[in-house]
Amino acid sequence: MKKVFNFSAGPAILPTEVFEQTADACRSFSKSGLSILEMSHRSKEIIAVMDEAIALVKELLGVPQGYQVLFLQGGASLQFSMVPYNLLPQTGKAVYIDTGVWAKKASKEAKLFGDVVVAASSSDKNYNYLPGIPQNLPADAVYCHVTSNNTIFGTQMSHFPKISLPYVADMSSDIFSRPIDVSQFGLIYAGAQKNLACAGTTLVIVREDLLGKAGRTIPSMLDYKIHIEGESMFNTPPVISIYVSLLTLRWLKKTGGLVALEQHNKAKAGKLYDAIDNSKLFTGTANKADRSLMNVTFVTQTPELEEAFLALAKERGLDGLKGHRSVGGFRASIYNAMPMEGIDALVSALQDFDRAHA
Amino acid sequence: MKKVFNFSAGPAILPTEVFEQTADACRSFSKSGLSILEMSHRSKEIIAVMDEAIALVKELLGVPQGYQVLFLQGGASLQFSMVPYNLLPQTGKAVYIDTGVWAKKASKEAKLFGDVVVAASSSDKNYNYLPGIPQNLPADAVYCHVTSNNTIFGTQMSHFPKISLPYVADMSSDIFSRPIDVSQFGLIYAGAQKNLACAGTTLVIVREDLLGKAGRTIPSMLDYKIHIEGESMFNTPPVISIYVSLLTLRWLKKTGGLVALEQHNKAKAGKLYDAIDNSKLFTGTANKADRSLMNVTFVTQTPELEEAFLALAKERGLDGLKGHRSVGGFRASIYNAMPMEGIDALVSALQDFDRAHA
Repeated sequence: MKKVFNFSAGPAILPTEVFEQTADACRSFSKSGLSILEMSHRSKEIIAVMDEAIALVKELLGVPQGYQVLFLQGGASLQFSMVPYNLLPQTGKAVYIDTGVWAKKASKEAKLFGDVVVAASSSDKNYNYLPGIPQNLPADAVYCHVTSNNTIFGTQMSHFPKISLPYVADMSSDIFSRPIDVSQFGLIYAGAQKNLACAGTTLVIVREDLLGKAGRTIPSMLDYKIHIEGESMFNTPPVISIYVSLLTLRWLKKTGGLVALEQHNKAKAGKLYDAIDNSKLFTGTANKADRSLMNVTFVTQTPELEEAFLALAKERGLDGLKGHRSVGGFRASIYNAMPMEGIDALVSALQDFDRAHA
Repeated sequence: MKKVFNFSAGPAILPTEVFEQTADACRSFSKSGLSILEMSHRSKEIIAVMDEAIALVKELLGVPQGYQVLFLQGGASLQFSMVPYNLLPQTGKAVYIDTGVWAKKASKEAKLFGDVVVAASSSDKNYNYLPGIPQNLPADAVYCHVTSNNTIFGTQMSHFPKISLPYVADMSSDIFSRPIDVSQFGLIYAGAQKNLACAGTTLVIVREDLLGKAGRTIPSMLDYKIHIEGESMFNTPPVISIYVSLLTLRWLKKTGGLVALEQHNKAKAGKLYDAIDNSKLFTGTANKADRSLMNVTFVTQTPELEEAFLALAKERGLDGLKGHRSVGGFRASIYNAMPMEGIDALVSALQDFDRAHA
């Protein structure tokens, strides 16, 4: 079968060995004689999966003391509500930075729980830039929510400026793509289906001293404290998605960890942006200083060329390049597992198309 | 490798062909050249998986007009809160029947949202019987919540008596084990990891006209109406767990549907209960009239024999027989996918042990 490179925004490409090892575990896992799909989450084998996955998250990100690592369900979308349910008192205030569709959804859900201050927004230019984090955030706010990478619009915070509040960050689409200083964050969450695993689990890293202060009774499944107490097994966890996470985390470590990955990601994105900038037909949509290393968004000026380029891409096994309807054009999602070979194939397609049609 | 029969309560045994087909899909799915683990939920292949899974649920259970079928996340435990969030007004009333640990957890969560009337309970005898549904339920209640099968205590409602309220039923451990009349229910929910799939998705069947009447704003991810509108893709669904559900549903249909399965389940449970009743050493823990066809709970009188029997079982490849700590002894979970061959192996072990030690 023809080699296919998956540029889909999520669920997204993972290392080939992760697919193969998962397939093996679906037939028979460990020495149990059972499929991983039928094994009790209370079995020693599955508890070992959970423990190793949590330990690798801590090791790879350098998670400091005082933080808890959880594997939950419901995606980032459920975190949009769980975060304020747990952290934002009814009479309290939280800051949200509006950098795209997902950031907006997060702030919308938070409004059910307390006062939401949208301190900056780039909606005026269809989110093609990052507005930055304003100085003088309200001192009485409990956190500042950011979306570290905006999958749809192709922008990414290159760093997290020092501010007076703990950040709460949706890192669904760039977790594990680079080193971060976890101590700047009160809470980090990430739907797994981009850089970590298949869909079905959500990683949460939370500073434990922030919990229990919202002054409301929280339904058990939405209460971080209950999940911490249950060691992510308060109820039956999504075992297979956590196992895929573990396999990816092992691969991340083997590949050299986050410093090496960031270098590789910069090299990949740099090559692709160069090809776009040097072409006659294609234009990047995001402000150059804010360009994402994970999602590369670009357009052509004429709709006919769009169809023609997607057809060429398909012919060459370059899958999932159609842009999100809010931006149009193309989006190449080049997460950790996308090899340089995939970038080279896409760059060749861009150059060949440019020569043929410009 | 030695044949292993998995008697675990959940995650639990599924048909072998389901494990094999899932393994194949993890390597390459459909004709895409991609692993199912990396495929966009918006791809035509995954939309087809969701559509077929929903259609088979409707077909197998005979779901009438006016009901919606959803695949969500968070397990039955999240449904404990979603049900009252959506159905129970702050000033309203709901009836709960207390038949075990899970039923109790459901009523506990509901108390956050409205008035909960526990109309019957079997907690006086450690839930070893079903208290029945009382006549004269409060006419102003909005639903009557039952747990159709009590996994821990080995009891199961053999039928659903006609009552004045719509039932809301947790069917996590006996969904698809027999035909039911869905029109008696306002809402049915089931964590998939017993009779349907691996852990990671939750089936919900809801009568649409009951929604939108609770008079509160509901966080999006907890709002059934939003999931209905999004056709279970409001956010990224747990694709792999839904695919495993689909494969099991296809197997259920091929095996002859729910009438045939119920016959088979009765034959399996009958044989096992007979062996227990005819033994000298083993005693069933549940009231005979309320015995579950899914979870067979039994004990011996002496702790030393417990260890010895578990050792014999292990030697013979009979896995997951240790009882829940609330009941002790043994529990054989014999869901749909447990073949008669597994029952026979367990019956032989019981008889041999009885002869050797009685």
